[in-house]
Amino acid sequence: MNFEFFNPTQLIFGAGALSQLGEVVARHGKRALIVTGGGSIKRSGVFDRAVASLRAAGVVVAECSGVEPNPRIASVKRGAKIARDEGCDLVIALGGGSTMDAAKVMAAAALYDGDPWDMIGHGQDNWVIPTRALPIITVPTLAATGSEMNCGAVISDDDSKVKSFVQANCLFPKVALVDPELTLSVPKDQTAYGVCDIITHVTEGYFNGVDGTPIQDRFAEGVIINAIEWGRKAVADGSDLEARAQVQWASIVALNGWVQAGVNMVPPVHMIEHALSAHHDITHGAGLAIINPAWMRFAAKARPERFAQFAQRIFGLTPEGKDDLALGMEGIDAYVEFLRSIGCPTRLSEVGIGDGLFDQYAKDAALVLHDENGNLLGRPPMTKEDIVGVLRSAL
Amino acid sequence: MNFEFFNPTQLIFGAGALSQLGEVVARHGKRALIVTGGGSIKRSGVFDRAVASLRAAGVVVAECSGVEPNPRIASVKRGAKIARDEGCDLVIALGGGSTMDAAKVMAAAALYDGDPWDMIGHGQDNWVIPTRALPIITVPTLAATGSEMNCGAVISDDDSKVKSFVQANCLFPKVALVDPELTLSVPKDQTAYGVCDIITHVTEGYFNGVDGTPIQDRFAEGVIINAIEWGRKAVADGSDLEARAQVQWASIVALNGWVQAGVNMVPPVHMIEHALSAHHDITHGAGLAIINPAWMRFAAKARPERFAQFAQRIFGLTPEGKDDLALGMEGIDAYVEFLRSIGCPTRLSEVGIGDGLFDQYAKDAALVLHDENGNLLGRPPMTKEDIVGVLRSAL
Repeated sequence: MNFEFFNPTQLIFGAGALSQLGEVVARHGKRALIVTGGGSIKRSGVFDRAVASLRAAGVVVAECSGVEPNPRIASVKRGAKIARDEGCDLVIALGGGSTMDAAKVMAAAALYDGDPWDMIGHGQDNWVIPTRALPIITVPTLAATGSEMNCGAVISDDDSKVKSFVQANCLFPKVALVDPELTLSVPKDQTAYGVCDIITHVTEGYFNGVDGTPIQDRFAEGVIINAIEWGRKAVADGSDLEARAQVQWASIVALNGWVQAGVNMVPPVHMIEHALSAHHDITHGAGLAIINPAWMRFAAKARPERFAQFAQRIFGLTPEGKDDLALGMEGIDAYVEFLRSIGCPTRLSEVGIGDGLFDQYAKDAALVLHDENGNLLGRPPMTKEDIVGVLRSAL
Repeated sequence: MNFEFFNPTQLIFGAGALSQLGEVVARHGKRALIVTGGGSIKRSGVFDRAVASLRAAGVVVAECSGVEPNPRIASVKRGAKIARDEGCDLVIALGGGSTMDAAKVMAAAALYDGDPWDMIGHGQDNWVIPTRALPIITVPTLAATGSEMNCGAVISDDDSKVKSFVQANCLFPKVALVDPELTLSVPKDQTAYGVCDIITHVTEGYFNGVDGTPIQDRFAEGVIINAIEWGRKAVADGSDLEARAQVQWASIVALNGWVQAGVNMVPPVHMIEHALSAHHDITHGAGLAIINPAWMRFAAKARPERFAQFAQRIFGLTPEGKDDLALGMEGIDAYVEFLRSIGCPTRLSEVGIGDGLFDQYAKDAALVLHDENGNLLGRPPMTKEDIVGVLRSAL
């Protein structure tokens, strides 16, 4: 267990926290690029409240709106240009994971003379990991990706159909200003996909980490147990502020590094899902709901004792009269049942994806995180045939 | 659940990490004050290895040795003077909690013209919270206080017999360089007291925090369960490196803020213990082993459902046929049994403390953290009579 951990983001969490935005931002800059996604935050009045708070604190605001789900590198370039043209000295992300990820890379791209796509790993010889970025402030409006308090971003290229990532210390937000009231209006389906995203961040490390991390196991199990319990409530009643706050908190701790510290996680399920959503514009969390259980059934055979622990500690299933694999498979069934109960798809056919491009997805999934044989990293590593097999089992 | 969280310390964790000390320190300064406690790190060769690593990296070393257990403000002043006289630009703490706490306050005192005791809360009208300090690097040689990755320090004044604390963002170490090999030589009794300290950091928040923190509950329970399991192993076989590493990791996460985020913890048990160890030079962890169970029996009456949860989730006790208080009391009995099994005292008489100064301890305990009626903060708040009652029950 040799590892490093670092996360300097200041977290401000609480219902009503949006009202502090101007005051918080003014500590870090004077001219803000505010990055947004679709129009929902304008219809809800959140955008106007944010801008009012900024102006009251003397912060000048430029805007980059219209960041798409599965954000494109073209949007990153557009935002970086606005930041430069307007002389912005910080970037505010006001939106979901796509908006936050795009804003992070804009903040680095604004200080980078080359092509921002150089900074996204896509199999290039010289991956330019950014070392400088404008200060970033995240204000999430969705509990899902955990991007609010980490240094990662996932960006897609529409031309090459590649969806990939960057992680760099300069992308840690200075402040994550997290107001669970902003998630009250998220519709049921997106709420459910967010819950699935949260849980999958944790299961990636739980199932694909090193052995001998019993404290991290308990942290991971705590996040999953509560994401299930409170996720169910948030989906059932979107106006339940306590449920929204618990799910939002789960989103943060699921991917701010606390659960993963020392785990040496690799995320094969995310890599496979990214390959899918690069070609089909499905919501990331919905894609994960389909791929994760299929992957779990594959991986349980290689590490049955781990899946047995999952079944026992998450779903309280009893081991009597079963071997580890049977118990583990029961746990996976229980997880699928939960996903279906909150309205997630668990089959590719439900989102209109067939087997036509399986070989392409398998190739794309292993583009960056592969071993010396080209196999996708994970426990166990996956050949292209393994990936196709998992996809086929999810048809 | 409105709260803030911030911890910018870089953690480098792993067996053998000491060899990186020079390289790590050289990123933050050129002239180091290295602060140490007793002579054990010199006898073990750890000190020489640290200095060799520093010199190889071109770092000039000045030394402040002899920081005592329950470190005194006089030692802080002595170290700050050495730092100034030698033109040090950073401070390295190489030792246990006392050494780390003293080093932190030295780092602030080196840049403060007034009396460093101004910075330690002791009921003064104008508590000077430091805003500047030399960069601090912690290298713990004991798993106990968690001081390696937080911004707190506890310092005693020998003249007034006050033991109190400071917390300030400038006291976050730049780096916590944590090498569990350095704890292999810690004797059985100090290992056990450290485990008790770790657990008590977590129980303070668990029992004295706000309601509605189910994810933090699971984190806290995870730390306690593992501190018990691995603590037992580390006490049984001090050369068990895996046990040492797990206990060291528990020490870090027990008080780096992760478990406490959003909990709004207050630490009445620590306040009572500090009052004791200001007058009697007992090891902090041993004092906690005595006070915590006595306090728990008092507090369980006010919040029986919480103690019932502790009994069930930590010790697997079953609720059938018992009310919450009875179940909670069984959990406390199980905890006392664990403490005794690893060799901790659980009675004041075992460390030679009688009832002669009970009123004084009660007064001192509420010196800083009290409500408007002067009662010690906690769940429930404690009158002086309550504190004396808890102490009397621990005789």
